Amino acid sequence: MMPAGFRASGVAAGIKPEGALDVGLIVADEPVAWAGTFTRNAAAAACVGWCRGALGTPVRAVIVNSGNANACTGTAGEAAVRRTAEAVAIEMGCSPAQVLVASTGTIGIPLPVAKLVDSVPAAAGALSDDPEAFAHSIMTTDSAIKTSSAHAGEAIVFGVAKGAAMLAPNMATMLAFLTTDAAVASDLQDVLDDAVRVSFDRICVDACESTNDSVFLLSSGVVPAEHDELARAVMEVCRDLAKQMVRDAEGGSKLVRIQVTGATTDGDAVTLGRAIAASSLWRAAAGGGDPNWGRVLAAMGAVDRALPVGQVTLAIGPETLFDRGEPCGSIEAARKAMDADEFVVSCAVGTGPGAAEVLSCDLTTDYVTLNAGGTT
Amino acid sequence: MMPAGFRASGVAAGIKPEGALDVGLIVADEPVAWAGTFTRNAAAAACVGWCRGALGTPVRAVIVNSGNANACTGTAGEAAVRRTAEAVAIEMGCSPAQVLVASTGTIGIPLPVAKLVDSVPAAAGALSDDPEAFAHSIMTTDSAIKTSSAHAGEAIVFGVAKGAAMLAPNMATMLAFLTTDAAVASDLQDVLDDAVRVSFDRICVDACESTNDSVFLLSSGVVPAEHDELARAVMEVCRDLAKQMVRDAEGGSKLVRIQVTGATTDGDAVTLGRAIAASSLWRAAAGGGDPNWGRVLAAMGAVDRALPVGQVTLAIGPETLFDRGEPCGSIEAARKAMDADEFVVSCAVGTGPGAAEVLSCDLTTDYVTLNAGGTT
Repeated sequence: MMPAGFRASGVAAGIKPEGALDVGLIVADEPVAWAGTFTRNAAAAACVGWCRGALGTPVRAVIVNSGNANACTGTAGEAAVRRTAEAVAIEMGCSPAQVLVASTGTIGIPLPVAKLVDSVPAAAGALSDDPEAFAHSIMTTDSAIKTSSAHAGEAIVFGVAKGAAMLAPNMATMLAFLTTDAAVASDLQDVLDDAVRVSFDRICVDACESTNDSVFLLSSGVVPAEHDELARAVMEVCRDLAKQMVRDAEGGSKLVRIQVTGATTDGDAVTLGRAIAASSLWRAAAGGGDPNWGRVLAAMGAVDRALPVGQVTLAIGPETLFDRGEPCGSIEAARKAMDADEFVVSCAVGTGPGAAEVLSCDLTTDYVTLNAGGTT
Repeated sequence: MMPAGFRASGVAAGIKPEGALDVGLIVADEPVAWAGTFTRNAAAAACVGWCRGALGTPVRAVIVNSGNANACTGTAGEAAVRRTAEAVAIEMGCSPAQVLVASTGTIGIPLPVAKLVDSVPAAAGALSDDPEAFAHSIMTTDSAIKTSSAHAGEAIVFGVAKGAAMLAPNMATMLAFLTTDAAVASDLQDVLDDAVRVSFDRICVDACESTNDSVFLLSSGVVPAEHDELARAVMEVCRDLAKQMVRDAEGGSKLVRIQVTGATTDGDAVTLGRAIAASSLWRAAAGGGDPNWGRVLAAMGAVDRALPVGQVTLAIGPETLFDRGEPCGSIEAARKAMDADEFVVSCAVGTGPGAAEVLSCDLTTDYVTLNAGGTT
């Protein structure tokens, strides 16, 4: 069920082959407050620029297509976003500036905008309380839909997301759409920023930042709620969706929880965790169930030139393999911990208060094969 | 032939299995000037710290073992380096401080130092003008030895290197040993730094920085030479060895020359080139012969948030696929260019004077398989 004040739909516009759902629409009964966070990639898609421009303005609708990212598509790509927003605006009786647009799919291929525009009346006609078709319409190589909800007092926060995977396949793009009926005086952008920082910003599949990453939070404000309740519920939904993305990562077979403690700041801990998550060598070892902890240490040492290696303690699962500068423990015990489809790598790097968990996955031959072809 | 004043050898100490050559020795007839550049990884191997401490002191010998990196091995690792240097010093009749030590192989496994020390008399007895056994002794998963030489007037610069690949397999480690008989008043360290900056520092196999990377340049000073001749010869040898490393990269099937022009500075161009070279998505596409140029642009946009995408022109081989912000060209023509075992990706990112070429390779399932196991 969508939160009060929202309806959603998903239809097939023919952008993806074989009649798959590829256009999703979320509509608010009235103009609603919203917040958004977007990719910082300089090659951001045209739709990202459009949404950034709409920040601060109440909106009526979000339209999203899968199968084409509409990124690096030049002036034609920008025109396609405008035409899409106009088509939704006509259907909804609102201004194009009140329509948010998102895309996910192959980069650099012209968006078949006519197909998208032609699908808008059907998408509007299919709007309902049921978000399932919408959740399907944004999938690329996701193996399952990703939804999550949490209560904020009497109000509800509901999220739908797609993960780091493409059908085409191409650049991984991550999209998340949160709606809530909570009425709070809070700055929605602050609520979303705080949640994104410890959820979507702490997952790493292949360290490749997308041109289309977008997270939206729309609030109809129908149900009274407390700020803290809303903040907690938004964070819970973001964390749950982020974890679902890593679980369903392209070619990934394991969820690796990288926990860094003892850093100077949380930010430093995140930097170290992301460096480990980005190491192809470590990720390949993780996929093979090989407790190659030297690669973890080398990844941290490459990103922090002043890492006090003599103070570092490193464990895989419950097995400590490096204790304040000295190798120790049982490789076999660590190997057993890695047999699970989820395991922890913990790195205590000093005595500071900074800590962070980064969720990552392994690197498998499936990832390479999936991404070795298929642009056209 | 080694340059005048140097001899080399390679023997089997039993660190690698099955009697493979695994200990190499280079000896100078007299103490010689030398320069070195080393990994900046905070988890640098014990031998790297030892060599850094010897900078500025003339040396008599370099001993290197393969099959074990002696990195992250704690105090035992440091003691192993000292014992190794002492064993060579006794054999050569010099001070341990005049002996450089290098290692390559698995990280975090105690170095079997007794085997290494026991092999020193045999290595000393095998010294000759022929560098081939030495070149073999430093190999890990290299498929061929890597040597190069260039003339500096009457003098010669000779280099031996090992590439980014491991037998065990483990963290990729890159080692290069240059010797020359050139006598010049130049600061050898400047000569080496200038050469490394545009050779070994401009290759990227998997963006994983090693704990053991070391480049040594030893000069016996027997043959008069001009500074410019020596600088050019050292650069030529470094570039040749660097290219050989990428050609023989673990799991790599193609050499991808990433050429960035129009950046503000050469350093900016290197940063952009390395970001492309580090993109798992682009590298997988390169391996599959898929001209997925959107991944190239996305990699640059992620590392330079201010990249002026509307000014960027991108080509694969001779085919321009993105011209100042607009997609163009023939994907099929680009695909043909990628069929070759070496191709160019060129990115003109603006009107600045900065330019750089980064040599990289593709990502294949072989790389993942090679690195999925084998620590113990």
